[in-house]
Amino acid sequence: MEQHFPKGSKPRIVIIGGGFGGIELAKKLCSKPVEVIMLDKHNYHTFQPLLYQVATGGLEADSIAFPLRKIFKGHKNLSFRVTEVKKVDAGKNTIETTIGAIEYDYLVLATGSTSNFFGQDEIERNAMPMKSIPEALNLRSLILQNLEAAQIPGNPELKKQLMNFVVVGGGPTGVETAGALAELKKHVLRSDYPDLNINDVNIYLIEGSPELLGNMSVQSQQKSAEFLAELGVIIMNNSRVQAYDGKVLSLLDGQHIPSSTVIWSAGVKGVVLDGLNPEIIVRGNRLKVNEVNLVDGYRNIYAIGDVAAMITEEFPNGHPGVAPAAIQQGKLLAKNLLNIIQKRPLEPFEYIDKGTMATVGRNRAVVDLHKIRFQGVFAWFTWMFVHLMTLVGFRNKLVVFVNWVWSYFSYDRGTRLIIRPFIRPKDLEEISTPHDSTTNH
Amino acid sequence: MEQHFPKGSKPRIVIIGGGFGGIELAKKLCSKPVEVIMLDKHNYHTFQPLLYQVATGGLEADSIAFPLRKIFKGHKNLSFRVTEVKKVDAGKNTIETTIGAIEYDYLVLATGSTSNFFGQDEIERNAMPMKSIPEALNLRSLILQNLEAAQIPGNPELKKQLMNFVVVGGGPTGVETAGALAELKKHVLRSDYPDLNINDVNIYLIEGSPELLGNMSVQSQQKSAEFLAELGVIIMNNSRVQAYDGKVLSLLDGQHIPSSTVIWSAGVKGVVLDGLNPEIIVRGNRLKVNEVNLVDGYRNIYAIGDVAAMITEEFPNGHPGVAPAAIQQGKLLAKNLLNIIQKRPLEPFEYIDKGTMATVGRNRAVVDLHKIRFQGVFAWFTWMFVHLMTLVGFRNKLVVFVNWVWSYFSYDRGTRLIIRPFIRPKDLEEISTPHDSTTNH
Repeated sequence: MEQHFPKGSKPRIVIIGGGFGGIELAKKLCSKPVEVIMLDKHNYHTFQPLLYQVATGGLEADSIAFPLRKIFKGHKNLSFRVTEVKKVDAGKNTIETTIGAIEYDYLVLATGSTSNFFGQDEIERNAMPMKSIPEALNLRSLILQNLEAAQIPGNPELKKQLMNFVVVGGGPTGVETAGALAELKKHVLRSDYPDLNINDVNIYLIEGSPELLGNMSVQSQQKSAEFLAELGVIIMNNSRVQAYDGKVLSLLDGQHIPSSTVIWSAGVKGVVLDGLNPEIIVRGNRLKVNEVNLVDGYRNIYAIGDVAAMITEEFPNGHPGVAPAAIQQGKLLAKNLLNIIQKRPLEPFEYIDKGTMATVGRNRAVVDLHKIRFQGVFAWFTWMFVHLMTLVGFRNKLVVFVNWVWSYFSYDRGTRLIIRPFIRPKDLEEISTPHDSTTNH
Repeated sequence: MEQHFPKGSKPRIVIIGGGFGGIELAKKLCSKPVEVIMLDKHNYHTFQPLLYQVATGGLEADSIAFPLRKIFKGHKNLSFRVTEVKKVDAGKNTIETTIGAIEYDYLVLATGSTSNFFGQDEIERNAMPMKSIPEALNLRSLILQNLEAAQIPGNPELKKQLMNFVVVGGGPTGVETAGALAELKKHVLRSDYPDLNINDVNIYLIEGSPELLGNMSVQSQQKSAEFLAELGVIIMNNSRVQAYDGKVLSLLDGQHIPSSTVIWSAGVKGVVLDGLNPEIIVRGNRLKVNEVNLVDGYRNIYAIGDVAAMITEEFPNGHPGVAPAAIQQGKLLAKNLLNIIQKRPLEPFEYIDKGTMATVGRNRAVVDLHKIRFQGVFAWFTWMFVHLMTLVGFRNKLVVFVNWVWSYFSYDRGTRLIIRPFIRPKDLEEISTPHDSTTNH
């Protein structure tokens, strides 16, 4: 295949992935004496922390997505392409993509993470992941379609199955999703579905360990469980999923929950490209990197964010898979790549923990900022403020703000629309093949 | 199949379609001594006049869709169901739907219209319609995916095809779409695609008659053509499409335009259900109705809006297929149905023409209000004000307003996102089959 980008004289940095780490790195390399090519399979950056609000009808998808091309507007040393990377050929300093081969001088893997089903194929086929916008929209459709279907007279067993919603995994995403579903039930479903007995809608939150929000303070763990219980969420700690066939969820202790909607937030794994040495893949499918994010055993391949595992005494499994870690690594790597090119000494990475927070619902959130911990209304406003400020793009901030203010006063969810046909997770990729013309090259 | 809704004692009115006419009718029947069942294949009302802004990246789909269930919140005499109606059985006063048979005392067909390809199957398979939200999102993906694909080196013929955009039909939708594409090119594409020569992007507007905006004043026709020309749109009047194979558009006069994106706004036809007497279907696939919207030859089946043709001296083909006509018919029919039930005399329909307007782009619109006609900046603000006021839902008004103000000052389009995989028009319906559980009844 024809060479896609002829190499110029400037050192070329290829960044794979437009998540938090990738865009921070690219922005810091704008107008520097390097050529930067960013590749992503989407033409937008996804603000993952708010995906659950898209899935539960609180926000439009477009308000948490930001066009990647816009970030690089006016910067001549930066190119962007929508493509999928198939393979890394480290020997030839080349990657193979769906739009052709691309050479690099420095390669940065910022591919992020995807849902981890821990090898359980049946669960993967039937449970709903929520790591991308198409997945969140798909989940929104499923939730609403199940409620529509529950109104059809007949089979009471099926009705029960359609009205049970199960969230697996009690981390921040699981807690926030369960809380959002409970508020949807309380404020919206009761009036939207007068022909259903909304008390029959059950929201389960299943967590393998004894506590929710494992990474947070005991105070926050207890308070979030309290908040969820107030909203009517059925919390099942010390419970592990054994199987899910799309109809009944089976737990290891022998319990069964009939449910058509199982939302999987039980774990993530790094997205690792083909062609890399499998021996450097550590726990969580992450790539082992050194203190400057250089991938173990390579001289010009770097990894940042969720896919990177920088193993230290404090972080024996690498840093937490959160936006601040990815952003900080991206920022430092930009500096260090320029240091390398200009033959200056490198700076090792030091993680600055920005604290952790999770929102359960209206006026209910928990915040841990090192020694400072608070819960409730003020925590909730803090959570909203931090998320608004972190959201990429002024238009997005505006639209999300308008939605939140409106929802606060109306107790409503504006985007409870079945716009996208529901598609089984495993089928999603197959139909993403773009227009014929784009594949015939 | 089990009877879906057991009949109560109150007269039952079944409304098929939640467009402008259907929701106006339903709202006016809230809390009246009738039972109302509204059916729609979507769970939302679509504000069709702004679909073109969704397709061109100016608005998020969710801001012009309004959850139908929300309209009827708290009104116990009204039920809503998502379903597709397969057939009318007028003899049995029953309709067959995908969720079972439903009895009616009065049936109101408010099924609206769909793109009219005038029997040309090949065009229907390959051109893009823009009459529903999935179609508009699909078109948005296609436009952006074609530009992404145009950057791949190689075949110059293909590149040309990918960069030519053709709008067929010079009515308000066609004019507005062509104008929006031209502004997208001018303000967004040039900076978004620095590796493309954006001057090679051509926007064609093809119209069979000698003038654009056939229903408007000569002044507006001329001014809109001027506005479009200023924006660089290539207007081809007196041109008719002969064929389109997905690659090359052929005109009757022998001209050929290579293009991967042909947007079809050349006409609409009523959506007529099976089971009705085919002899009452008149021009434009509309149902012939009398002066109270009663369908010709039936005693309790009514039709309103785009699907109804109330033939008068002034309107030999029925009223124009615009929102005000549908709303006015819905409003009067609510009154007349109550008149029938309460054995009072009926009021005949009288159309109040609210005028016509079309926007071409920033500061460029044309407005005909009977004798009062104006064009330019003030017309543009009038257009925006009227559309904002007509938009259903306060949240939608807010979000659209925020988007417009932001776009006005930033010269940007916020939602240029390929969120939905592009799907050929004809395949769209096949994958809309919802979740398994909803079909196994």
